[in-house]
Amino acid sequence: MNAVTELAALLPAGTVLTDPDVTAAYARDQTFLVPGTPLCAVKARSRDDVVTTLRWATEHRVPVVPRGAGTGLAGGATAVDGCVMLSLAGMTAIRELSPADEIAVVEPGVINADLDRAARRHGLMYAPDPSSHEISTIGGNLATNAGGLRCVKYGVTRDSTLGLEVVLADGRVLATGRRTMKGVTGYDLTGLFVGSEGTLGVITAATLRLRRAPAAPPVTLAAEFPSPRAAGDAVAAIIAAGCRPVLLELMDRNTLRAIDDWKHIGLDPGVQAMLIAQAEAGPGGDAARMARLCEDAGASFVAVSTTPEEAEELIGLRRLAYPAKERLGACLVEDVCVPRSALPDMITAIEETAARHATMICTVAHAGDGNLHPVFVFDRGLAEPPPNVWAAADEVFRAALDAGGTLTGEHGVGLLKRRWLELETGPLAGELQRGIKQVFDPLGIMNPGKAI
Amino acid sequence: MNAVTELAALLPAGTVLTDPDVTAAYARDQTFLVPGTPLCAVKARSRDDVVTTLRWATEHRVPVVPRGAGTGLAGGATAVDGCVMLSLAGMTAIRELSPADEIAVVEPGVINADLDRAARRHGLMYAPDPSSHEISTIGGNLATNAGGLRCVKYGVTRDSTLGLEVVLADGRVLATGRRTMKGVTGYDLTGLFVGSEGTLGVITAATLRLRRAPAAPPVTLAAEFPSPRAAGDAVAAIIAAGCRPVLLELMDRNTLRAIDDWKHIGLDPGVQAMLIAQAEAGPGGDAARMARLCEDAGASFVAVSTTPEEAEELIGLRRLAYPAKERLGACLVEDVCVPRSALPDMITAIEETAARHATMICTVAHAGDGNLHPVFVFDRGLAEPPPNVWAAADEVFRAALDAGGTLTGEHGVGLLKRRWLELETGPLAGELQRGIKQVFDPLGIMNPGKAI
Repeated sequence: MNAVTELAALLPAGTVLTDPDVTAAYARDQTFLVPGTPLCAVKARSRDDVVTTLRWATEHRVPVVPRGAGTGLAGGATAVDGCVMLSLAGMTAIRELSPADEIAVVEPGVINADLDRAARRHGLMYAPDPSSHEISTIGGNLATNAGGLRCVKYGVTRDSTLGLEVVLADGRVLATGRRTMKGVTGYDLTGLFVGSEGTLGVITAATLRLRRAPAAPPVTLAAEFPSPRAAGDAVAAIIAAGCRPVLLELMDRNTLRAIDDWKHIGLDPGVQAMLIAQAEAGPGGDAARMARLCEDAGASFVAVSTTPEEAEELIGLRRLAYPAKERLGACLVEDVCVPRSALPDMITAIEETAARHATMICTVAHAGDGNLHPVFVFDRGLAEPPPNVWAAADEVFRAALDAGGTLTGEHGVGLLKRRWLELETGPLAGELQRGIKQVFDPLGIMNPGKAI
Repeated sequence: MNAVTELAALLPAGTVLTDPDVTAAYARDQTFLVPGTPLCAVKARSRDDVVTTLRWATEHRVPVVPRGAGTGLAGGATAVDGCVMLSLAGMTAIRELSPADEIAVVEPGVINADLDRAARRHGLMYAPDPSSHEISTIGGNLATNAGGLRCVKYGVTRDSTLGLEVVLADGRVLATGRRTMKGVTGYDLTGLFVGSEGTLGVITAATLRLRRAPAAPPVTLAAEFPSPRAAGDAVAAIIAAGCRPVLLELMDRNTLRAIDDWKHIGLDPGVQAMLIAQAEAGPGGDAARMARLCEDAGASFVAVSTTPEEAEELIGLRRLAYPAKERLGACLVEDVCVPRSALPDMITAIEETAARHATMICTVAHAGDGNLHPVFVFDRGLAEPPPNVWAAADEVFRAALDAGGTLTGEHGVGLLKRRWLELETGPLAGELQRGIKQVFDPLGIMNPGKAI
């Protein structure tokens, strides 16, 4: 009996998939990266399935690549040759939702927006909202410490994670963290797993913090600026004034043109950048103040929603950004994050880089966090980004690091950014991280070659 | 030349202290624990002093016990025989304070409240505010992941820590984290150091997140309740209503009596618990709503401040809690944290435990977080808590764990709680934590015997 047949016999019928056409569909995420060939895929339905798979993988020294919905943008769930692709997408139970304690205990396959909707039935919300929230899973969000639009106010996935249930490489089950709002017993193993991209173990449940949802839908404003720098100045002024936007997004000229070419929104040719912001409604809200600060910073036009429908229309512009770019060609979506004060300079640096390397870059930024997504657009006929795109990306990464920033704000390192990683963290951090990896996964079977 | 003479020669004059009367003063924190005898104390003034000390300690296999102001309540900075007590209290520079990026880079000896005051000169604040904020250091706060009164709104020390500079046991200098609001390059080493109680390395600088200070001083309210359960119900109602208190503190009957015996505040004998809450002033503030919710939950009396002076007077009651107890005897200050919904039951459990073991327990709680500080009062003549106090503490710990809680919300494990640690975390977490320790400190010289 070969190893895969043995695994299939250990798991419920239909759990192990071996048809190459089928396993190929499990082998990649949303990047262009060409995956290796998996041995098989496992559709886990329970923690026991995960335990069985990992015990077997340890026994047979088979690499394990965990995956959720495959919406990753850094190659974290790309197959390596001879691996088992372990899908957690079928573990979709919300095991518990406690309004009194404002926590939920969920399995990793729960879709982010589904948890948010379940919470809202109790007047609560799940705050982290990556742009992929309708399609990405909590497990994937945990693996990359996903951010999102609202994280300017509520923080990233780590800030909403209280505890985890993890299956280690050898099949042992570990509980980390707690159900309480704070605690400091031993090292922060929860924080270690969040953002570890499947390299330390497989998360099979998470205790997450929910928050009270605002009583009324937020007020949205959109402001058009004659330069990215003016928009950056408005962001700085909004933060300095103590406003607390729920989201604060910036779109550059190229992004706006891509949207206009597609949807004909009537964009004024002089508009070089747009800010979209949301504030809580009501007397403590900041919409009017933010609008005034945008005008003071030189906005040529500011619209503030007066109804939920108008709010939806304005935020809808932001949602068009990514699909509009995909119409232009294949996309390398990057994810640098800089100190907020460096945002205008970083936008300028990206524009200069684009010109220098004759590359099309459209940038959207979670401006309140200094987190920019420069999207490098290239010929759809190419299997991967051409050399000028890589050269431009390299320049953007280095500019972000020079500005005191980071390679990745919320997408993770995956495979894509590994070659730049130690530019940021230095060799000593790399050595320590490899040491930690060794403690949790001495055989090196957990998502090898990723993240660290 | 013996080892200590050699160290003294390597460091600036006056840095190494060997007079036993002097080193004894460095050998303990605020617990009753009897320390070992240090070899010497080092008053570090710079990162270089720390590097030199740790290189020397590695060479000579000398245990190193880092300390800040010695305000710890779990024995984390208690000397072991033959150790060097490494004081960071003299590293007091605020290296940078950037209003634009809302960050500060500080050395570990900076007093918490001094950083807050420096931030307020720019309209900012440093949010974590342990009760010891006027005397404890940022380094100590980081070592224990300190919480405080405001953490119900702003989170604990980890939530304000973006990056660290750490000297490892062998003297190598590690930079962790970043200056940006988010990032996910490699494992979260920053989170690993926060709360590690000096067992992984010595923090020599921290990049901390500041926040905009509210424009107006908060409104304070005090509410008296006929039972702890009614106060607990009010806490639940306040949270469920979506109020966002800046602090939400509960004092039990014994605490109130201790304050009244001392300061004669005219306490009504029927009052069994008091809530002290603060809300932001202004239209978005919640003081009036919280007052109404307290009345609905059965408060016999509610006072809401109308001036900053009245606010100070009400919050002053809370500040009296700890000194009032110290008048009663020696104190074992505990620190359990439970899910918020378990708060009333936990208060009842503590009262029953006190009766069963004929022990005086006064409880103050950061009620909004479910974090209780039962203070076990015992005869000042005793060197350490008598058996009935330990038996009662054991029961309280187990009750907290049974309620889904934790042994320590914000004080750390130190020496005091080590024997209960694996009751909470289990043996597997213990094994992994020892593995992590081994990666950072293979010789085991960093604060041996503490935290894990």
